[in-house]
Amino acid sequence: MVPDKVLDEINHNRKGYEEELAEFLRIPSVSTDSTHTADIRQAAFWVLKKVQKLGFHVELHETARHPVVCGHIVNDPALPTILIYGHYDVQPPDPLDEWITPPFSPSIRDGHIYARGATDNKGQCLTYLAAMEAMLSVTGTLPLNVKVLIEGEEEIGSPNLGSFLQEHREDLQTDVIAISDGSQFASGIPAITYGLRGLSYLEVLVQGPRFDLHSGSFGGVVANPVQVLAEMVARLKNNDGTVAIPGFYDHVLELEPEERQELSNLPVDEVRLKKYLGVDELVGEQDYSPVERQTARPTLDVNGIWGGFSGEGAKTIIPAKAGAKVSMRLVPNQRASSISEGFKSFIHSIAPSTVKIQISEMHGSDPVLIERNQPAMEAAARAIAFGFGKKPVFIREGGSIPIVGLFKEVLDCGSILLLGWGSPDDGAHSPNERFSLKDFHRAICSVAALFYSLEESYRA
Amino acid sequence: MVPDKVLDEINHNRKGYEEELAEFLRIPSVSTDSTHTADIRQAAFWVLKKVQKLGFHVELHETARHPVVCGHIVNDPALPTILIYGHYDVQPPDPLDEWITPPFSPSIRDGHIYARGATDNKGQCLTYLAAMEAMLSVTGTLPLNVKVLIEGEEEIGSPNLGSFLQEHREDLQTDVIAISDGSQFASGIPAITYGLRGLSYLEVLVQGPRFDLHSGSFGGVVANPVQVLAEMVARLKNNDGTVAIPGFYDHVLELEPEERQELSNLPVDEVRLKKYLGVDELVGEQDYSPVERQTARPTLDVNGIWGGFSGEGAKTIIPAKAGAKVSMRLVPNQRASSISEGFKSFIHSIAPSTVKIQISEMHGSDPVLIERNQPAMEAAARAIAFGFGKKPVFIREGGSIPIVGLFKEVLDCGSILLLGWGSPDDGAHSPNERFSLKDFHRAICSVAALFYSLEESYRA
Repeated sequence: MVPDKVLDEINHNRKGYEEELAEFLRIPSVSTDSTHTADIRQAAFWVLKKVQKLGFHVELHETARHPVVCGHIVNDPALPTILIYGHYDVQPPDPLDEWITPPFSPSIRDGHIYARGATDNKGQCLTYLAAMEAMLSVTGTLPLNVKVLIEGEEEIGSPNLGSFLQEHREDLQTDVIAISDGSQFASGIPAITYGLRGLSYLEVLVQGPRFDLHSGSFGGVVANPVQVLAEMVARLKNNDGTVAIPGFYDHVLELEPEERQELSNLPVDEVRLKKYLGVDELVGEQDYSPVERQTARPTLDVNGIWGGFSGEGAKTIIPAKAGAKVSMRLVPNQRASSISEGFKSFIHSIAPSTVKIQISEMHGSDPVLIERNQPAMEAAARAIAFGFGKKPVFIREGGSIPIVGLFKEVLDCGSILLLGWGSPDDGAHSPNERFSLKDFHRAICSVAALFYSLEESYRA
Repeated sequence: MVPDKVLDEINHNRKGYEEELAEFLRIPSVSTDSTHTADIRQAAFWVLKKVQKLGFHVELHETARHPVVCGHIVNDPALPTILIYGHYDVQPPDPLDEWITPPFSPSIRDGHIYARGATDNKGQCLTYLAAMEAMLSVTGTLPLNVKVLIEGEEEIGSPNLGSFLQEHREDLQTDVIAISDGSQFASGIPAITYGLRGLSYLEVLVQGPRFDLHSGSFGGVVANPVQVLAEMVARLKNNDGTVAIPGFYDHVLELEPEERQELSNLPVDEVRLKKYLGVDELVGEQDYSPVERQTARPTLDVNGIWGGFSGEGAKTIIPAKAGAKVSMRLVPNQRASSISEGFKSFIHSIAPSTVKIQISEMHGSDPVLIERNQPAMEAAARAIAFGFGKKPVFIREGGSIPIVGLFKEVLDCGSILLLGWGSPDDGAHSPNERFSLKDFHRAICSVAALFYSLEESYRA
């Protein structure tokens, strides 16, 4: 389905795409950290110039925080339109001392490129720009009309993208949306994702005495905010590890019997997973398999906790305050807003009167399910089979891509293709994040195939 | 009891003593932090020179970590000997941003000198050197034989002082030991302390997966070490706030009825205490008064907790590890070693098999009780009445001075005078630590009075 000369160009320019990726990865575009604001802008302009060079009409749109890069190229109004989404921002690199090579100095080892953002999302995002570069340079055109939207706030929950989509909904109308911000089921087992978990992320602050106290002088009369916080965190879970917040499971959509059957057919290697994670045993709801628990069941995790003295040695204090970041992964048909409300009510209901509690919502996104039986899905399956030499499996994913729910709702587009090019062991959000250069190449081929395959399926 | 000319000299040189204190406070001698090793040595040499200038035979003794400064002056073998103990090291100054003026730039406001170490222990320690300087400069001699021992490891639990005392036990033989490392009962209500709490300080580390994981991809199958730690910390306490470690209260010596009577006579202002602490209510064992809970009942406090992401914004991870520093204040007849063992056994007994646990003992010290009916105590009471214009009350203290137990045991000396010159609201171990310049002056007068008063009582 891909013209041979396009494929030849992709094969021929392999090193060139890799060098461009390394250049993109060198920009420390950490969106959550305000000290990186200039780097974020540098990354946005890097994308802008790259898309512009392809011949797109492109614009940088300011938001309340980090800009959105949008571009479009209309070849023929009769052709179908694809909207490509990606993000140029990355997670913070901490803990820094666990990186073998520095997070923003890309390094190639064992066929992988190592850097923060390698897989999430710079590497995956670039596959689209690389494939289009190849198609344009060889054929002078693209088989579809194309829109791109590459934002800088994905890792902080895309707070400004909802209003941006609302404002530009007419300009962003499309037949298909393609997003590659996840991974294959396993390395070499490509997948199409039709479900995503949502997210409720909150921060709890506990204020005890007005300053740190000598634990000798005041131990015995003052509520210790770390103790209070620990007790509240403990009460978030039942003894069996399920979430104890009242109503948490009320709207959870159970898996269909055929979904469970499909998921159980996936080649899951628990021994290998445990070895990769470095744990002796897996935990979680006994009535669900690990893959079900990772993708189709809701969870709660403390993402961080702090309070008092954590330096070298000993300091004998009752800390003045303590805090924790807690997030919940949500599944259809839970709603982020009501889950966050439930969390807040529960914490306030169990908080003792001896301390002051403050809870802030960091961000939230609703879970998503996409119809599997539709032409765009079938075109994508053919394209991936071409690029990877293997039919994709259909899976749900445990992570959240807040924008998917927004796209579905605001642009009223049900043909959203979630095509993860990475591998689950790429270490997204972890130290030593990486992206396989082989997957990078196979993904570029798949993108080219997707363009021709979609054009064919719409023509048919 | 103090010659007028000595008192005149003390009154006359008030500013000079204060300037010397400020000079001492400028040295950031934080003993727990290895980046301050040079500062610790500078403080040791500052003390050495100061004692040398008084005419003492003085030596700096190296230990495995921070040096001990020892000196002696023998006037007449027939005179009684006093050993003065103090420490030149200080607690870490964090949290730094809560200091109104920098911790190592002493600043005088409202009659107080503000700096880390102002009350604990540089200010209190200097009162002895100042009083001796006055006595020597005016009378050319001292009414007692004097030994001084000023160490640099008090804030890290005096790990090397036990062996040091063992080694030098002959040289350190003494009739009376004076230590001023605590506070008055309240500002203007001087006190003699006859009881101290002991301390068991431990660190618990919880290791989960081998690196931080994406909470979307792995939420639902991996034990979260922060959650595990919070659950274990929660289980350290019963619902009523008492310590849940089996056997914790087994050897606790109950207060004598007359002690409870005396303690209940103390002018305790709960409203003022709550206002000072910035809390709406006090907590603790209902069968004991606040002052009993602060001084004569054992407690457990988390001094610090950490794990995962605590920076600005949100990071969606399952942390690889978490940790907490936990300390227990002990009372007669608990033993630090068995309490620490009990803590370790309990944590190991409740730790789930899904994580790896590591516990280290940071330090421990046994509680102390001193006989109140003895001549040295009476001499001290007279001296304080002279210096402060008010009879002291007899109290127990909530803090720990590990060396007191060591002195009692190794030097076999039961006449230990714990004379706190500070005020409970000086903020020892807290930001904006301070020492009242009025108390500094009254304490210098009291020390001079103590020397003459002890000499009189031994002569009698």
